[in-house]
Amino acid sequence: MTEKHINAAVRDFLANGDTASIATALAALHPADIASALGDFTPAELARVLEALPVPMQARVFGYLPADMQGAVAELYERDALAALLAAMSHDERADVFNALSRKTRDAVLPALAQADREDLRKLASYEEGTAGSVMTSDYATVTPELTSVEAIERLRREAPNTETIYDSYVINEARQVVGVVSLRDLITAPDDRTVAEIMKTSVITARADESKEEAARRLATYDLLALPVINGGDALVGIITADDAMDVQAEAATEDFYRSGAVQGPHMGGHRGDMPGAAAITSMKKASIWMLYRMRVFWLVLLVFGNIFSGEGIAYFEDTIMAYVALVFFLPLLIDSGGNAGSQAATLMVRGLAIGDVRMRDWGSMLGREVFVAGLLGVTMAVAVSVIGLYRGGPEVALVVSMSMVIIVLVGSLIGMSLPFILSRFKLDPAAASAPLITSIADAAGVIIYFSIATAMLDIPAPA
Amino acid sequence: MTEKHINAAVRDFLANGDTASIATALAALHPADIASALGDFTPAELARVLEALPVPMQARVFGYLPADMQGAVAELYERDALAALLAAMSHDERADVFNALSRKTRDAVLPALAQADREDLRKLASYEEGTAGSVMTSDYATVTPELTSVEAIERLRREAPNTETIYDSYVINEARQVVGVVSLRDLITAPDDRTVAEIMKTSVITARADESKEEAARRLATYDLLALPVINGGDALVGIITADDAMDVQAEAATEDFYRSGAVQGPHMGGHRGDMPGAAAITSMKKASIWMLYRMRVFWLVLLVFGNIFSGEGIAYFEDTIMAYVALVFFLPLLIDSGGNAGSQAATLMVRGLAIGDVRMRDWGSMLGREVFVAGLLGVTMAVAVSVIGLYRGGPEVALVVSMSMVIIVLVGSLIGMSLPFILSRFKLDPAAASAPLITSIADAAGVIIYFSIATAMLDIPAPA
Repeated sequence: MTEKHINAAVRDFLANGDTASIATALAALHPADIASALGDFTPAELARVLEALPVPMQARVFGYLPADMQGAVAELYERDALAALLAAMSHDERADVFNALSRKTRDAVLPALAQADREDLRKLASYEEGTAGSVMTSDYATVTPELTSVEAIERLRREAPNTETIYDSYVINEARQVVGVVSLRDLITAPDDRTVAEIMKTSVITARADESKEEAARRLATYDLLALPVINGGDALVGIITADDAMDVQAEAATEDFYRSGAVQGPHMGGHRGDMPGAAAITSMKKASIWMLYRMRVFWLVLLVFGNIFSGEGIAYFEDTIMAYVALVFFLPLLIDSGGNAGSQAATLMVRGLAIGDVRMRDWGSMLGREVFVAGLLGVTMAVAVSVIGLYRGGPEVALVVSMSMVIIVLVGSLIGMSLPFILSRFKLDPAAASAPLITSIADAAGVIIYFSIATAMLDIPAPA
Repeated sequence: MTEKHINAAVRDFLANGDTASIATALAALHPADIASALGDFTPAELARVLEALPVPMQARVFGYLPADMQGAVAELYERDALAALLAAMSHDERADVFNALSRKTRDAVLPALAQADREDLRKLASYEEGTAGSVMTSDYATVTPELTSVEAIERLRREAPNTETIYDSYVINEARQVVGVVSLRDLITAPDDRTVAEIMKTSVITARADESKEEAARRLATYDLLALPVINGGDALVGIITADDAMDVQAEAATEDFYRSGAVQGPHMGGHRGDMPGAAAITSMKKASIWMLYRMRVFWLVLLVFGNIFSGEGIAYFEDTIMAYVALVFFLPLLIDSGGNAGSQAATLMVRGLAIGDVRMRDWGSMLGREVFVAGLLGVTMAVAVSVIGLYRGGPEVALVVSMSMVIIVLVGSLIGMSLPFILSRFKLDPAAASAPLITSIADAAGVIIYFSIATAMLDIPAPA
């Protein structure tokens, strides 16, 4: 069955109130496919579909719904059904749903939960958005150093239904500090009487609950881990970040950076599960409203309109030069665009380098030195290209002015583009906000001044008053 | 020890020829950290360091070296040492190294390998770059349906040292077709006498060896899998893609898209391991040569210089209009930039939507309809902003011309930006090549014509001959 067929069939069953057939039709499908196939259902329709499914299946499908949909659907559940759903969900996903609920619904559902679940929810909900703590889960497996491999496996066997992953188990002491990590693979291949202390690896890579979730995800990827243990200020284990959640964090960060580089404001785009409590995450361009798209784009566009006043002022200042040599205007878009283009490229390379941790703040100096060389070479290459057009359009004098302007404009544009991400970063702003449009605007103003200054000096035009 | 200290210490030991101390100093470190700390070593230095380490450690560090470095270092190994190294590496990484070797070295080392390893290398090397087959590994665990859970665990225990992951085992029939998947978790929690056939899940999500690696990685992420089995045309299991490799594929694709959106040509950027056979992958902006950076940038810049001739021609055509109303030039950068900016935004949203599979080719029509609304709203907002500047700079007539031009330019720019990724995709080109600089150049030419046409019509200027 394709998604389209599933969608149509479920709609039919809903219209006929045939909830039994819904459960039968969806029983064999992967929860991710169900969530995707019902992507255009209203919260009320989704709530009716979900309530027709067994609770464990409800919980799994729920994990794949967009964050805003999770909240809206959960609000429509009866109190006891909601409590049962939350109890069946994985701990990190349940904390996200809980955070998306209205205060009233939260207060109503809390007393219906078991004491342990209540405390767990409060704990996970307390970590700030964007931190490693906000994406971790509290269902992980722990063992203690003195257990034998057989005892440890027995313990994991008992805990297995309640933990997200039992493949890496964390070895903790009485203070819940992580003293080692042991893989299920090592446990099952070890002789029966070896202790965990003998098998475990003692150098454990961890994340701190208050560090950024992107850094934590990057660390998990760097060391090819299945899960990354998260510790608090006292070094005690408080949760784990699993590889699938780290992939979502990575994909989300890549989308945000990509958007910012195009001067689009990210509306806290989520992966398939919203891990930003309370954020109105949209998951799809196709489903975004016109108003949402307008808001994502209008800020930068209007700001850049005003930013471009500087280019206009520059042109006004050189009005006499333009009047004397109107052919200069032919080359204006070409020259100012070239500076913006070279600057955008330089910014793109730096933004990505900073995002993936390859380039750091302290590298600015050495990067600047190399950029001068690279941009100089590029500028000369482009000057050669433009001099051909200049000769044809305006003669040797104009060709010379245009070529010289090109070299300097490309150099200046590149240095602006390369430096801006560092400057933004220095002021604790997102370096990805050094978007192509922003750099174009800045490079334009610089280009206008450079071009007409050179033209005024070389073409024997009276300097502006 | 920080990376800097490790680097300095290893350099000292190398200078003194003290290879024993190298092995001791690096013994407790994670191979990823060793590879990173020695990032500025020459291939010859790296080869000497690696040969001081035990072979299994050599193999692990090797997996974290950039692809071009892997090839360069491997070329410096003695034939037998290289054979030992290849035998100890994971199958996918070893295939990458093998592919990076010169034909001469390949021919020399092949006879020194075991028959099974030779065949495996030939098989993995035969998949085309960019396919799921090119990133899969052949060390996976299989079981058969009739085994009991105890027998299956015993089998995994024996195979464990030779497989990348034993946490998901694929259940195959005599034709090596995948009939199910069983997790180690389910095996250890099942009663001893249950058979694999009773425990396994029969709906298995797979990838085909010839589909794109990005699609396969996305599928693994969508379904939160630890590994994705890869099948050939006859549905037989030929390999698996592990989650850590899928993360690398995702990160690499995000980088490529990001670069293209900034009109930078990706030099086949790799993750920490090069999975593109033979490609000269660079892994770091910091380590890229000036010549490499020049080549990544020069193509688009020069192309766009020639692309901008159209804007210049447009201006030349309207020379009389400009002479009559030189104040119009003030608004030129502002107006043409606005069209380019709106277009860049629209392209950014579409490129990302197409890359993550949210938007498909068939959605072009409905997207176009919505873009008209969104761009119209944006154009009106920006026209209001620019009319203020227009009034101040040129009076009510100019303000009207500039405002009207703004609405149309933003609309046209947005539609170009939104459609270009679809058009590129239609012609089997990468939609991410619809970069901000490219759209700026196209939108500029359109903007020049729209602006001066409106000005000529409304300001009572004789139309160009």
